[in-house]
Amino acid sequence: MSETESEKNARHNARMAKIKVARDRMMETKTGEKGLIIVHTGPGKGKSSSGFGMIMRCVGHGMPCAVVQFIKGNWESGERNVLKTRFADLCTVHTMGEGFTWETQDRARDVAAAMAAWEKAKELIRDPAIHMVLLDEINIALRYDYIPLDDVIAFLRDEKPPMTHVVLTGRNAKPELIEIADLVSEVQAVKHPFKQGIKAQKGVEY
Amino acid sequence: MSETESEKNARHNARMAKIKVARDRMMETKTGEKGLIIVHTGPGKGKSSSGFGMIMRCVGHGMPCAVVQFIKGNWESGERNVLKTRFADLCTVHTMGEGFTWETQDRARDVAAAMAAWEKAKELIRDPAIHMVLLDEINIALRYDYIPLDDVIAFLRDEKPPMTHVVLTGRNAKPELIEIADLVSEVQAVKHPFKQGIKAQKGVEY
Repeated sequence: MSETESEKNARHNARMAKIKVARDRMMETKTGEKGLIIVHTGPGKGKSSSGFGMIMRCVGHGMPCAVVQFIKGNWESGERNVLKTRFADLCTVHTMGEGFTWETQDRARDVAAAMAAWEKAKELIRDPAIHMVLLDEINIALRYDYIPLDDVIAFLRDEKPPMTHVVLTGRNAKPELIEIADLVSEVQAVKHPFKQGIKAQKGVEY
Repeated sequence: MSETESEKNARHNARMAKIKVARDRMMETKTGEKGLIIVHTGPGKGKSSSGFGMIMRCVGHGMPCAVVQFIKGNWESGERNVLKTRFADLCTVHTMGEGFTWETQDRARDVAAAMAAWEKAKELIRDPAIHMVLLDEINIALRYDYIPLDDVIAFLRDEKPPMTHVVLTGRNAKPELIEIADLVSEVQAVKHPFKQGIKAQKGVEY
Protein backbone atom coordinates (compact mmCIF):
# COMPACT_ATOMS: atom_id res chain seq x y z
CA MET A 1 0.00 0.00 0.00
CA SER A 2 1.46 3.37 -0.93
CA GLU A 3 1.98 6.08 1.65
CA THR A 4 -0.86 8.58 2.12
CA GLU A 5 -0.18 12.33 2.05
CA SER A 6 -0.81 12.49 5.79
CA GLU A 7 1.67 9.64 6.50
CA LYS A 8 4.21 11.38 4.27
CA ASN A 9 3.72 14.62 6.21
CA ALA A 10 4.04 12.87 9.58
CA ARG A 11 7.27 11.13 8.50
CA HIS A 12 8.68 14.38 7.15
CA ASN A 13 7.75 16.32 10.29
CA ALA A 14 9.39 13.74 12.58
CA ARG A 15 12.57 13.78 10.50
CA MET A 16 12.70 17.59 10.53
CA ALA A 17 12.25 17.64 14.34
CA LYS A 18 15.35 15.41 14.61
CA ILE A 19 17.33 17.60 12.22
CA LYS A 20 16.33 20.67 14.24
CA VAL A 21 17.70 19.15 17.48
CA ALA A 22 20.99 18.20 15.80
CA ARG A 23 21.25 21.58 14.11
CA ASP A 24 20.52 23.58 17.26
CA ARG A 25 23.19 21.57 19.12
CA MET A 26 25.69 22.29 16.31
CA MET A 27 24.80 26.00 16.16
CA GLU A 28 25.26 26.37 19.95
CA THR A 29 28.97 25.76 19.40
CA LYS A 30 29.14 28.63 16.86
CA THR A 31 29.39 31.62 19.15
CA GLY A 32 32.46 33.44 17.88
CA GLU A 33 32.44 36.73 16.01
CA LYS A 34 35.29 37.83 13.81
CA GLY A 35 36.08 40.10 10.93
CA LEU A 36 36.44 37.61 8.10
CA ILE A 37 38.83 37.37 5.18
CA ILE A 38 36.46 36.21 2.43
CA VAL A 39 37.65 35.01 -1.01
CA HIS A 40 35.41 34.42 -4.06
CA THR A 41 37.47 32.75 -6.75
CA GLY A 42 37.20 30.20 -9.57
CA PRO A 43 36.40 30.45 -13.28
CA GLY A 44 32.59 30.64 -12.96
CA LYS A 45 30.33 33.68 -13.00
CA GLY A 46 29.04 35.32 -9.81
CA LYS A 47 32.19 36.24 -7.88
CA SER A 48 31.92 40.03 -8.09
CA SER A 49 28.12 39.99 -7.92
CA SER A 50 28.38 37.94 -4.73
CA GLY A 51 30.72 40.58 -3.29
CA PHE A 52 28.24 43.31 -4.22
CA GLY A 53 25.46 41.24 -2.61
CA MET A 54 27.44 41.29 0.66
CA ILE A 55 27.92 45.07 0.38
CA MET A 56 24.13 45.31 -0.10
CA ARG A 57 23.64 43.31 3.13
CA CYS A 58 25.97 45.65 5.06
CA VAL A 59 24.19 48.72 3.72
CA GLY A 60 20.87 47.12 4.73
CA HIS A 61 22.14 46.90 8.30
CA GLY A 62 23.41 50.48 8.29
CA MET A 63 27.06 49.34 8.40
CA PRO A 64 29.54 51.67 6.63
CA CYS A 65 31.52 49.88 3.92
CA ALA A 66 33.74 50.55 0.89
CA VAL A 67 34.57 49.12 -2.53
CA VAL A 68 37.89 49.30 -4.40
CA GLN A 69 37.80 48.16 -8.03
CA PHE A 70 41.28 46.98 -9.10
CA ILE A 71 40.65 46.29 -12.79
CA LYS A 72 37.35 47.76 -13.90
CA GLY A 73 37.50 51.35 -15.11
CA ASN A 74 35.03 54.20 -15.01
CA TRP A 75 32.66 52.85 -17.66
CA GLU A 76 29.00 52.60 -16.79
CA SER A 77 27.94 49.63 -14.71
CA GLY A 78 24.80 48.88 -12.75
CA GLU A 79 26.68 48.20 -9.53
CA ARG A 80 28.60 51.48 -9.70
CA ASN A 81 25.40 53.40 -10.40
CA VAL A 82 23.80 51.94 -7.28
CA LEU A 83 26.88 52.54 -5.13
CA LYS A 84 27.10 56.17 -6.27
CA THR A 85 23.44 57.10 -6.14
CA ARG A 86 21.63 54.81 -3.66
CA PHE A 87 24.37 53.68 -1.22
CA ALA A 88 26.50 56.86 -1.11
CA ASP A 89 25.57 57.63 2.53
CA LEU A 90 27.14 54.37 3.74
CA CYS A 91 29.53 53.14 1.04
CA THR A 92 32.34 54.79 -0.94
CA VAL A 93 33.52 53.36 -4.26
CA HIS A 94 37.05 53.79 -5.61
CA THR A 95 37.36 52.70 -9.21
CA MET A 96 41.13 52.57 -9.65
CA GLY A 97 41.46 50.23 -12.63
CA GLU A 98 41.78 51.34 -16.22
CA GLY A 99 40.49 48.23 -17.91
CA PHE A 100 41.61 44.71 -18.50
CA THR A 101 45.30 44.03 -19.06
CA TRP A 102 44.72 43.23 -22.73
CA GLU A 103 42.95 46.57 -23.20
CA THR A 104 45.58 48.83 -21.66
CA GLN A 105 48.57 46.88 -23.12
CA ASP A 106 50.76 48.90 -20.81
CA ARG A 107 52.24 47.03 -17.87
CA ALA A 108 53.86 50.05 -16.20
CA ARG A 109 50.52 51.88 -16.18
CA ASP A 110 48.66 48.79 -14.90
CA VAL A 111 51.19 48.39 -12.07
CA ALA A 112 50.88 52.05 -11.06
CA ALA A 113 47.06 51.84 -11.07
CA ALA A 114 47.04 48.61 -9.04
CA MET A 115 49.53 49.98 -6.49
CA ALA A 116 47.38 53.10 -6.05
CA ALA A 117 44.34 50.85 -5.55
CA TRP A 118 46.18 48.81 -2.92
CA GLU A 119 47.25 51.96 -1.04
CA LYS A 120 43.61 53.11 -1.01
CA ALA A 121 42.53 49.62 0.13
CA LYS A 122 44.90 49.71 3.11
CA GLU A 123 43.65 53.16 4.13
CA LEU A 124 40.02 51.96 4.01
CA ILE A 125 40.70 48.69 5.88
CA ARG A 126 42.54 50.62 8.64
CA ASP A 127 39.56 52.98 9.09
CA PRO A 128 37.83 51.75 12.27
CA ALA A 129 34.45 53.12 11.11
CA ILE A 130 34.30 50.80 8.07
CA HIS A 131 32.85 47.31 8.63
CA MET A 132 33.49 45.71 5.22
CA VAL A 133 35.85 46.45 2.33
CA LEU A 134 35.33 44.75 -1.05
CA LEU A 135 38.54 44.45 -3.11
CA ASP A 136 36.97 43.67 -6.48
CA GLU A 137 39.23 41.74 -8.90
CA ILE A 138 42.30 42.11 -6.66
CA ASN A 139 43.19 38.49 -7.51
CA ILE A 140 43.86 39.56 -11.11
CA ALA A 141 46.30 42.23 -9.89
CA LEU A 142 48.00 39.65 -7.66
CA ARG A 143 48.18 37.08 -10.44
CA TYR A 144 50.05 39.48 -12.76
CA ASP A 145 52.35 40.62 -9.90
CA TYR A 146 51.03 44.17 -10.16
CA ILE A 147 51.00 44.33 -6.36
CA PRO A 148 53.30 42.43 -3.98
CA LEU A 149 51.65 39.29 -2.60
CA ASP A 150 53.79 39.28 0.56
CA ASP A 151 52.64 42.78 1.43
CA VAL A 152 48.95 41.91 0.91
CA ILE A 153 49.21 38.74 3.03
CA ALA A 154 51.15 40.44 5.85
CA PHE A 155 48.74 43.38 5.94
CA LEU A 156 45.60 41.24 6.05
CA ARG A 157 47.09 38.94 8.68
CA ASP A 158 48.74 41.51 10.96
CA GLU A 159 47.13 44.91 10.40
CA LYS A 160 43.47 44.30 9.52
CA PRO A 161 41.30 45.40 12.48
CA PRO A 162 39.90 42.22 14.09
CA MET A 163 36.22 42.97 13.35
CA THR A 164 36.60 44.26 9.77
CA HIS A 165 35.46 41.97 6.94
CA VAL A 166 37.55 42.06 3.74
CA VAL A 167 36.13 40.45 0.59
CA LEU A 168 38.59 39.62 -2.21
CA THR A 169 37.35 38.55 -5.65
CA GLY A 170 38.76 37.36 -8.95
CA ARG A 171 39.80 34.06 -10.48
CA ASN A 172 43.11 32.31 -9.70
CA ALA A 173 43.34 33.35 -6.03
CA LYS A 174 46.87 32.75 -4.74
CA PRO A 175 47.30 29.72 -2.43
CA GLU A 176 48.88 32.01 0.20
CA LEU A 177 45.67 34.07 0.28
CA ILE A 178 43.47 30.97 0.56
CA GLU A 179 45.69 29.84 3.43
CA ILE A 180 44.96 32.92 5.59
CA ALA A 181 41.27 33.28 4.53
CA ASP A 182 38.31 32.33 6.77
CA LEU A 183 35.74 31.78 4.01
CA VAL A 184 36.64 30.65 0.51
CA SER A 185 34.15 29.88 -2.25
CA GLU A 186 35.24 28.59 -5.64
CA VAL A 187 32.77 29.16 -8.46
CA GLN A 188 32.81 26.57 -11.25
CA ALA A 189 31.36 27.37 -14.69
CA VAL A 190 28.91 24.59 -15.54
CA LYS A 191 27.33 26.55 -18.41
CA HIS A 192 28.18 29.97 -19.84
CA PRO A 193 25.97 31.96 -22.28
CA PHE A 194 29.03 33.02 -24.38
CA LYS A 195 29.04 29.44 -25.67
CA GLN A 196 25.65 30.12 -27.26
CA GLY A 197 26.96 33.33 -28.88
CA ILE A 198 25.21 35.56 -26.34
CA LYS A 199 26.99 38.83 -25.58
CA ALA A 200 27.53 40.45 -22.18
CA GLN A 201 24.17 41.91 -21.15
CA LYS A 202 23.06 44.76 -18.85
CA GLY A 203 22.00 43.58 -15.42
CA VAL A 204 23.72 40.22 -15.86
CA GLU A 205 27.39 40.93 -16.59
CA TYR A 206 27.58 44.66 -15.73
CA MET B 1 71.49 38.38 -17.48
CA SER B 2 68.11 38.84 -15.89
CA GLU B 3 65.34 40.75 -17.65
CA THR B 4 65.15 44.49 -16.95
CA GLU B 5 61.86 46.09 -15.90
CA SER B 6 61.61 47.76 -19.30
CA GLU B 7 62.15 44.45 -21.17
CA LYS B 8 59.52 42.82 -18.94
CA ASN B 9 57.06 45.61 -19.76
CA ALA B 10 57.74 45.37 -23.50
CA ARG B 11 57.22 41.59 -23.48
CA HIS B 12 54.01 41.95 -21.44
CA ASN B 13 52.64 44.68 -23.72
CA ALA B 14 53.31 42.62 -26.88
CA ARG B 15 51.59 39.59 -25.38
CA MET B 16 48.55 41.67 -24.33
CA ALA B 17 48.26 43.14 -27.84
CA LYS B 18 48.01 39.58 -29.21
CA ILE B 19 45.43 38.59 -26.58
CA LYS B 20 43.42 41.70 -27.45
CA VAL B 21 43.27 40.74 -31.16
CA ALA B 22 42.18 37.17 -30.34
CA ARG B 23 39.66 38.39 -27.78
CA ASP B 24 38.12 41.01 -30.06
CA ARG B 25 37.75 38.38 -32.80
CA MET B 26 36.02 36.04 -30.30
CA MET B 27 33.74 38.79 -28.93
CA GLU B 28 32.64 39.77 -32.45
CA THR B 29 30.85 36.42 -32.63
CA LYS B 30 28.90 37.18 -29.42
CA THR B 31 26.11 39.35 -30.73
CA GLY B 32 22.97 37.64 -29.44
CA GLU B 33 20.72 38.97 -26.71
CA LYS B 34 18.41 36.76 -24.72
CA GLY B 35 16.59 36.60 -21.43
CA LEU B 36 18.66 34.06 -19.55
CA ILE B 37 17.78 31.25 -17.20
CA ILE B 38 20.55 31.60 -14.59
CA VAL B 39 21.22 28.99 -11.89
CA HIS B 40 23.50 29.48 -8.86
CA THR B 41 23.89 26.16 -7.08
CA GLY B 42 26.42 24.09 -5.13
CA PRO B 43 27.26 23.76 -1.43
CA GLY B 44 29.45 26.88 -1.13
CA LYS B 45 28.53 30.34 0.11
CA GLY B 46 27.63 33.20 -2.24
CA LYS B 47 24.66 31.87 -4.24
CA SER B 48 21.94 34.18 -2.89
CA SER B 49 24.33 37.11 -2.52
CA SER B 50 25.29 36.69 -6.17
CA GLY B 51 21.58 36.81 -7.10
CA PHE B 52 21.16 39.99 -5.07
CA GLY B 53 24.24 41.43 -6.78
CA MET B 54 22.50 40.89 -10.15
CA ILE B 55 19.35 42.59 -8.85
CA MET B 56 21.59 45.50 -7.78
CA ARG B 57 22.96 45.68 -11.35
CA CYS B 58 19.44 45.79 -12.83
CA VAL B 59 18.38 48.52 -10.40
CA GLY B 60 21.54 50.45 -11.34
CA HIS B 61 20.40 50.39 -14.98
CA GLY B 62 16.85 51.45 -14.10
CA MET B 63 15.44 48.04 -15.06
CA PRO B 64 12.37 46.93 -13.05
CA CYS B 65 12.89 43.60 -11.29
CA ALA B 66 11.43 41.39 -8.56
CA VAL B 67 12.50 38.93 -5.86
CA VAL B 68 10.57 35.93 -4.52
CA GLN B 69 12.02 34.28 -1.41
CA PHE B 70 10.93 30.64 -1.24
CA ILE B 71 12.39 29.65 2.13
CA LYS B 72 13.47 32.69 4.07
CA GLY B 73 10.79 34.26 6.24
CA ASN B 74 10.13 37.81 7.34
CA TRP B 75 13.02 38.10 9.80
CA GLU B 76 15.38 41.02 9.44
CA SER B 77 18.01 40.74 6.74
CA GLY B 78 20.26 43.31 5.13
CA GLU B 79 19.14 42.43 1.62
CA ARG B 80 15.44 42.76 2.45
CA ASN B 81 16.05 46.11 4.15
CA VAL B 82 17.75 47.42 0.99
CA LEU B 83 15.05 46.02 -1.31
CA LYS B 84 12.28 47.57 0.80
CA THR B 85 13.84 50.96 1.48
CA ARG B 86 16.36 51.77 -1.27
CA PHE B 87 15.17 49.74 -4.30
CA ALA B 88 11.40 49.95 -3.79
CA ASP B 89 10.85 52.18 -6.86
CA LEU B 90 12.20 49.46 -9.19
CA CYS B 91 12.05 46.13 -7.33
CA THR B 92 9.31 44.34 -5.39
CA VAL B 93 10.15 41.64 -2.83
CA HIS B 94 7.81 38.77 -1.95
CA THR B 95 8.97 36.87 1.10
CA MET B 96 6.80 33.77 0.94
CA GLY B 97 8.81 31.32 3.04
CA GLU B 98 8.28 30.65 6.70
CA GLY B 99 11.73 29.39 7.57
CA PHE B 100 13.82 26.34 6.92
CA THR B 101 12.14 22.97 6.71
CA TRP B 102 13.65 21.90 10.03
CA GLU B 103 12.24 25.02 11.70
CA THR B 104 8.65 24.71 10.54
CA GLN B 105 8.50 20.90 10.93
CA ASP B 106 5.24 21.02 9.03
CA ARG B 107 5.36 19.67 5.50
CA ALA B 108 1.78 20.62 4.59
CA ARG B 109 2.44 24.25 5.58
CA ASP B 110 5.78 24.27 3.71
CA VAL B 111 4.10 22.94 0.56
CA ALA B 112 1.33 25.56 0.74
CA ALA B 113 3.88 28.36 1.22
CA ALA B 114 6.07 27.12 -1.65
CA MET B 115 3.10 26.75 -4.01
CA ALA B 116 1.97 30.31 -3.21
CA ALA B 117 5.53 31.52 -3.89
CA TRP B 118 5.56 29.70 -7.25
CA GLU B 119 2.21 31.24 -8.26
CA LYS B 120 3.60 34.69 -7.43
CA ALA B 121 6.79 33.87 -9.36
CA LYS B 122 4.81 32.97 -12.50
CA GLU B 123 2.80 36.19 -12.28
CA LEU B 124 6.00 38.27 -11.99
CA ILE B 125 7.81 36.45 -14.82
CA ARG B 126 4.79 36.92 -17.11
CA ASP B 127 4.76 40.69 -16.42
CA PRO B 128 6.33 42.25 -19.54
CA ALA B 129 7.54 45.29 -17.56
CA ILE B 130 9.85 43.20 -15.35
CA HIS B 131 13.37 42.49 -16.69
CA MET B 132 14.68 40.09 -14.03
CA VAL B 133 13.07 37.86 -11.42
CA LEU B 134 15.18 36.30 -8.65
CA LEU B 135 13.71 33.07 -7.26
CA ASP B 136 15.77 32.83 -4.09
CA GLU B 137 16.20 29.29 -2.67
CA ILE B 138 13.69 27.79 -5.13
CA ASN B 139 16.04 24.80 -5.51
CA ILE B 140 15.30 23.83 -1.89
CA ALA B 141 11.56 23.84 -2.62
CA LEU B 142 12.17 21.70 -5.73
CA ARG B 143 14.43 19.30 -3.87
CA TYR B 144 11.76 18.55 -1.26
CA ASP B 145 9.05 18.26 -3.93
CA TYR B 146 7.16 21.22 -2.45
CA ILE B 147 6.51 22.44 -5.99
CA PRO B 148 6.20 20.29 -9.13
CA LEU B 149 9.46 20.18 -11.11
CA ASP B 150 7.67 19.46 -14.42
CA ASP B 151 5.56 22.59 -14.05
CA VAL B 152 8.60 24.77 -13.29
CA ILE B 153 10.58 23.40 -16.26
CA ALA B 154 7.66 23.70 -18.70
CA PHE B 155 6.88 27.25 -17.58
CA LEU B 156 10.48 28.49 -17.86
CA ARG B 157 10.93 26.80 -21.24
CA ASP B 158 7.60 27.66 -22.87
CA GLU B 159 6.07 30.67 -21.11
CA LYS B 160 8.94 32.87 -19.93
CA PRO B 161 9.01 36.02 -22.10
CA PRO B 162 12.10 35.79 -24.37
CA MET B 163 13.93 38.83 -22.91
CA THR B 164 13.22 38.21 -19.20
CA HIS B 165 16.09 36.96 -17.03
CA VAL B 166 15.18 34.47 -14.30
CA VAL B 167 17.75 33.71 -11.58
CA LEU B 168 17.26 30.53 -9.52
CA THR B 169 19.36 29.87 -6.41
CA GLY B 170 19.86 27.14 -3.84
CA ARG B 171 21.97 24.02 -3.52
CA ASN B 172 21.15 20.71 -5.24
CA ALA B 173 19.68 22.20 -8.44
CA LYS B 174 17.76 19.51 -10.34
CA PRO B 175 19.50 18.15 -13.48
CA GLU B 176 16.36 19.00 -15.53
CA LEU B 177 16.77 22.66 -14.52
CA ILE B 178 20.48 22.68 -15.38
CA GLU B 179 19.56 21.17 -18.74
CA ILE B 180 17.33 24.13 -19.77
CA ALA B 181 19.49 26.85 -18.14
CA ASP B 182 21.74 29.23 -20.10
CA LEU B 183 24.17 30.09 -17.31
CA VAL B 184 24.98 27.72 -14.44
CA SER B 185 27.52 28.39 -11.70
CA GLU B 186 28.32 25.84 -9.04
CA VAL B 187 29.82 27.22 -5.85
CA GLN B 188 32.19 24.91 -3.97
CA ALA B 189 32.97 25.48 -0.29
CA VAL B 190 36.77 25.53 0.05
CA LYS B 191 36.66 27.02 3.57
CA HIS B 192 33.71 27.90 5.81
CA PRO B 193 33.90 30.00 9.01
CA PHE B 194 31.48 27.65 10.87
CA LYS B 195 34.41 25.21 11.03
CA GLN B 196 36.24 27.75 13.23
CA GLY B 197 33.19 28.10 15.50
CA ILE B 198 32.20 31.45 14.01
CA LYS B 199 28.46 32.17 14.00
CA ALA B 200 26.39 33.67 11.18
CA GLN B 201 27.22 37.38 11.10
CA LYS B 202 25.37 40.52 9.95
CA GLY B 203 26.46 41.66 6.51
CA VAL B 204 28.02 38.30 5.69
CA GLU B 205 25.30 35.66 6.07
CA TYR B 206 22.21 37.87 6.31
